[in-house]
Amino acid sequence: RASINLAVIAGDGIGPEIVPEGLKVLRAALAESGTELSVTPYSIGAQRYLDTGETLSTADLEALAGHDALLLGAIGDPRVPAGILEREILLRLRFAFDHYVNLRPSVLYPGVPTPLAEPGNIDLVVVREGTEGLYSGNGGSVHRGMPTEVATEVSVNTAHGTERLVRYAFELAASRPRRHLTLVHKTNVLVHAGGLWQRTVDRLAAEYPDINVDYCNVDAATIYLVTDPQRFDVIVTDNLFGDILTDEAGAVSGGVGLAASGNINPEGDFPSMFEPIHGSAPDIAGTGKADPTATIASVALMLRHLGLAGPAARIEAAIRADMEARAEASARGVPLRRTTTQIGDAILAAMEDNR
Amino acid sequence: RASINLAVIAGDGIGPEIVPEGLKVLRAALAESGTELSVTPYSIGAQRYLDTGETLSTADLEALAGHDALLLGAIGDPRVPAGILEREILLRLRFAFDHYVNLRPSVLYPGVPTPLAEPGNIDLVVVREGTEGLYSGNGGSVHRGMPTEVATEVSVNTAHGTERLVRYAFELAASRPRRHLTLVHKTNVLVHAGGLWQRTVDRLAAEYPDINVDYCNVDAATIYLVTDPQRFDVIVTDNLFGDILTDEAGAVSGGVGLAASGNINPEGDFPSMFEPIHGSAPDIAGTGKADPTATIASVALMLRHLGLAGPAARIEAAIRADMEARAEASARGVPLRRTTTQIGDAILAAMEDNR
Ligand SMILES: CC(C)[C@H](C(=O)O)[C@@H](O)C(=O)O
Ligand SMILES: CC(C)[C@H](C(=O)O)[C@@H](O)C(=O)O
Repeated sequence: RASINLAVIAGDGIGPEIVPEGLKVLRAALAESGTELSVTPYSIGAQRYLDTGETLSTADLEALAGHDALLLGAIGDPRVPAGILEREILLRLRFAFDHYVNLRPSVLYPGVPTPLAEPGNIDLVVVREGTEGLYSGNGGSVHRGMPTEVATEVSVNTAHGTERLVRYAFELAASRPRRHLTLVHKTNVLVHAGGLWQRTVDRLAAEYPDINVDYCNVDAATIYLVTDPQRFDVIVTDNLFGDILTDEAGAVSGGVGLAASGNINPEGDFPSMFEPIHGSAPDIAGTGKADPTATIASVALMLRHLGLAGPAARIEAAIRADMEARAEASARGVPLRRTTTQIGDAILAAMEDNR
Repeated sequence: RASINLAVIAGDGIGPEIVPEGLKVLRAALAESGTELSVTPYSIGAQRYLDTGETLSTADLEALAGHDALLLGAIGDPRVPAGILEREILLRLRFAFDHYVNLRPSVLYPGVPTPLAEPGNIDLVVVREGTEGLYSGNGGSVHRGMPTEVATEVSVNTAHGTERLVRYAFELAASRPRRHLTLVHKTNVLVHAGGLWQRTVDRLAAEYPDINVDYCNVDAATIYLVTDPQRFDVIVTDNLFGDILTDEAGAVSGGVGLAASGNINPEGDFPSMFEPIHGSAPDIAGTGKADPTATIASVALMLRHLGLAGPAARIEAAIRADMEARAEASARGVPLRRTTTQIGDAILAAMEDNR
C-alpha cells in the first residue's frame, strides 16, 4: 500500500491530547516504510454539539466513508447528557460502517503493574460483536414517568451477524499458537440468543477441527479474568458482554490506558475505525496525565488491518520496549511518572532505536 | 420468633455436602437461643429430573410456600442440558415467591487470600433485582436454525419492580455507616431501561437526603472492582448486571466459596430463599473440597431476615474467627487445607468458644 488516507476524530476530553501522540508514531513508522500519509481532522464531538446541536451529519458520514481508515480519540463530555454523543457519534459510526468486529486484545507485559497479585501470562483477545445485541437501539417505554411505566431493551441477534463474527474469531484463533476459542454468553438464562450463539459456534467448530473450543458463562468469565486470566486465548461474545469483559480485561492487564481496539469491517466495504477502549476521562483532561499508549497500540492495529504488518510490528516492538522500561522502573520502586507527550516521545525513541 | 419451619433443597453437585454444614451451624445457633427448628428436605434437582422428568411441580411450590424460609445448596448438573434446572427450579422459585431483592454482600476479611495485590477494605453489598430484566424469559426466535434466524431477548423493567428494589437499597444504605449508594447500569446505551432506573434513583434520592448517591457504568464497575473495590458500599442494579458483578465481587473478596446470598421477599408474602452464590461445582462434587462457608453465611442472612439478629450475629462472629484462622495460616505460609466437614466443624467450634 503506497498511501493511507486517514480521517482523525480527536473528540472530547483527553482525545485531543492522545491522538497527536498516535499520529506522531504513525508518521515515523510510515516514513520508514515509505508509505504516504494524508490526515484529515474532523471536528466531531462535544464542542461542535454544544455550538451547533450537530453530532454526526450525513455529510460527515459521506466524507468519512471516503477514507481508508478512521482514528478516534474519545467521545463523551460531562456538559452533554450521558449517552447522546456516545450513541450519535461512536455507535452510529460503528453501525453505519458495519464494524461488526470489535477487536480488543489484552496483553500483560512482564513486570507491568497490575492489580492482580499473581496475574500469570495474560495474552487474550476479545472478539466483540459490534452491530447488534442490546446495542441495536431496539426498546422503548410505555407510561413513561408514571407508576405503571414499563421500559424494555431488546437484544437482537441475527444468524448473519453471529456467523460472520464467530467465523472471524475462529480464523483469529487459528492464527494464534494456542488455537483456543471460548464462547462467553449466558446461555443458561438467555436461551434464544444463547442458543443461536452456541449453535453457530458448534457448527463452525466442525469446520475448524484443530481449534479447541469451549464455553463459559459471562458471570464465571469475570471470575476467571481475576483468578486465572491465562485460561483465555480468543473470546468471542456479544456486544454488551464484550463491553463488560474488555474493561475488566484491560484493568487486569495494566489498565485501560494500555488497551487498544479496532472497530473493523473485515470486507473493507467501509473504513474501519481504531480507538483506545478507554473513554474521554474528563477528570484528567488537560493535565497531561493521559497515557497515549492505547492510542498508539490502536494505530498498530490499524496498520495491520491495512496490510502494513511491518510498520505495525515496529510500533508494537516499541510499545513492548516501553513496557520493559515501566517494569524496570516499578521493580526499582520508582514507577515512571511521565506526561502524555513524554510517553509518546519514549515510544517514538524506542522505535528509532530499533531501526 | 419461637420456631422456624425450614424447607431445605440440597440440590446438585456439592449441594448435599455443604447444606449439612449450614444446618449443623444453624441448629447450634438456635439451640443457644431456644428457637425450635423443623427441617423438611425436598428432593428437587437433577436426580429427580433424570428419574421422573419433573423439575418443580405445582405441588412442590404449594408445599414450599408453607415454610418460613428455604435453604438451597446448588442447582445444575452436567447430565442435564445447561439451563433447564437453573430456569425451571432456581429462577422459577425466585419468580414464584417474588424474590425481588437478591442480596449479595461481599466482605474481604483481613488477611484472607484474594487475587488482588492491594485489595483494600472490601465491604460492599449488591442489591440485585431478582424478578425482571433479561431474566424475564421474554424473547424468542424466528427462522430457527436457518441463515435468516433472528433471536431476541427482552429486558423488561417496570416502575413497580424498579422502585421497590431501589427503595430497599436506599434503606439498606441508610443502615450502613458509609451511607453510599451506587446505581450500576449502562444508561448511555440502554436508554429506556437506564432512564427508568436513573429516574427512580433520582426521585428516591430526594427522600433520602443523607445518602450519598452516584452512578457507575457497568463496564467501569468491573474495573473498580479490581482497582478500587472500596469505592463501593451499596450497589443497586438489575438482574443481569447483578449476576455479573457479584461473581466478580465474590472473586476479589476471597472467592465465591465465601459469598452468601438471600433471595428475599421483604414483605414476607412468600418465604425467602437463601443460597451460596456459587454453583453446583460438579468438578469437585464428592471430593470434600467444597467450602461450606457461603452456605453458613447464607444461614446467617436467613436468621437476620427472620428477625433473629442474635443467632445471626453469633454465626457471623464465628465465620469471622475462622477467617482470622485462615489469614493466620496464610501469613505463616501454610494455607489451611480442610475438608467441607472440617470447615463446618471449625466454624461450629468458634461459635461455641464465643458463647
Ligand atoms: C462509550 C460506550 C458507548 C462504549 C460502548 O459501550 O461500546 C464504550 O464503553 C466502549 O467500550 O467502546
Ligand atoms: C444459575 C444461574 C441461573 C444463576 C443466575 O444467573 O442468577 C446464578 O448464576 C446466580 O447468580 O445465582
